[in-house]
Amino acid sequence: MQIARIIGSAVSTAKDPKLTGFKLLVAQRATPDNQVYGDPFLVADTVGAGEGELVILVEGSSARETLKTANIPVDAVVIGILDSIEVNGELVFQKS
Amino acid sequence: MQIARIIGSAVSTAKDPKLTGFKLLVAQRATPDNQVYGDPFLVADTVGAGEGELVILVEGSSARETLKTANIPVDAVVIGILDSIEVNGELVFQKS
Amino acid sequence: MQIARIIGSAVSTAKDPKLTGFKLLVAQRATPDNQVYGDPFLVADTVGAGEGELVILVEGSSARETLKTANIPVDAVVIGILDSIEVNGELVFQKS
Amino acid sequence: MQIARIIGSAVSTAKDPKLTGFKLLVAQRATPDNQVYGDPFLVADTVGAGEGELVILVEGSSARETLKTANIPVDAVVIGILDSIEVNGELVFQKS
Amino acid sequence: MQIARIIGSAVSTAKDPKLTGFKLLVAQRATPDNQVYGDPFLVADTVGAGEGELVILVEGSSARETLKTANIPVDAVVIGILDSIEVNGELVFQKS
Repeated sequence: MQIARIIGSAVSTAKDPKLTGFKLLVAQRATPDNQVYGDPFLVADTVGAGEGELVILVEGSSARETLKTANIPVDAVVIGILDSIEVNGELVFQKS
Repeated sequence: MQIARIIGSAVSTAKDPKLTGFKLLVAQRATPDNQVYGDPFLVADTVGAGEGELVILVEGSSARETLKTANIPVDAVVIGILDSIEVNGELVFQKS
Repeated sequence: MQIARIIGSAVSTAKDPKLTGFKLLVAQRATPDNQVYGDPFLVADTVGAGEGELVILVEGSSARETLKTANIPVDAVVIGILDSIEVNGELVFQKS
Repeated sequence: MQIARIIGSAVSTAKDPKLTGFKLLVAQRATPDNQVYGDPFLVADTVGAGEGELVILVEGSSARETLKTANIPVDAVVIGILDSIEVNGELVFQKS
Repeated sequence: MQIARIIGSAVSTAKDPKLTGFKLLVAQRATPDNQVYGDPFLVADTVGAGEGELVILVEGSSARETLKTANIPVDAVVIGILDSIEVNGELVFQKS
């Protein structure tokens, strides 16, 4: 799964009916110590993630395995908000 | 899901029968503030997206989860037309 | 879906029995105006594509959704031969 | 499948209920002779892998085919701990 | 599907029980004229491929469609040994 930071949100009224009710967030991949990289993209939220938070992102068909996204045309879903990350014995991220 | 801009269309008569009736559009990935990047590719449209519009693109097996694309050999489908995108508290895209 | 050009073919006798009967072609990704790029790879043909033709390529699990490739271990399949492509109002490819 | 090294772990309390009970590890792709490369990401562990170990990583829908991850929203799972790797007739990695 | 060369093998005793009986090979992507590129990775063999051979590799969920890999947590499987490859009318690879 990817580490990503929520950096914004998007609005779409003309969309597939199955997407109704899903909050569309803008995310960017991030390193364990919370440095963003790569091109921003859209994700569906299932855990109430807010802007600036570091999250766990699942992609591909597994994105449809959460309780809320079964049979939904989404390929990138937020499945958790990160509290802390430790790398090589060092705490590199702690949720403020 | 990817942010993409519709930049054209393609015609194919010799194709898998399941594709009949689908409009084939040419798309290019885009940043939240509507700058295109990467190589153009083909997408199936399900929401009536027009040339120049910024859209929501779903890829992989999830592309077959819309009401119109079940069991169809497509791996990139337009599932929404973007109205607006906000990043870091700033409105970076607004549909004209 | 990807735009690709058929650039050759491959032969394999020692293979999974399910592949018997499929023509293995060598393809390379292409821009809408028919410039090839990236590393060549193998595709299964389902529409009788010939060398030099610009084709529609579907990848991943969707590659198994054509009438001929259900349950076949293929992840890149030709599902159409391109007649023409228009980008930003300009005809950039026309099948000769 | 990818060769990867376990470099850390992550904690998330606000997450999809299906993830409860899974240890979230931080991994980085590695060459056969155990040189890490690319951006770190998160994996679910199913074999008790420890920090510093070289592991076998399966991704995409196949990540849900282990006995422990059926129907779980995970797209990268550790399915084995590597004992040794031989390349071009030479032993390039041996688990200490 | 990818063209790849088998460059070695790997051993893992602590692994998912479903992997028992599968030979784990080390592979590297290759051009049609047998030049390797990119980072080596692990594949499951289903056709008895040997070191140095150029093979057909299927990835993603399609890797589970061979007779031997149904429901197995593998995302890259050898499904054929290449005899010859022709590009632009020229024979660029012939199995010795």
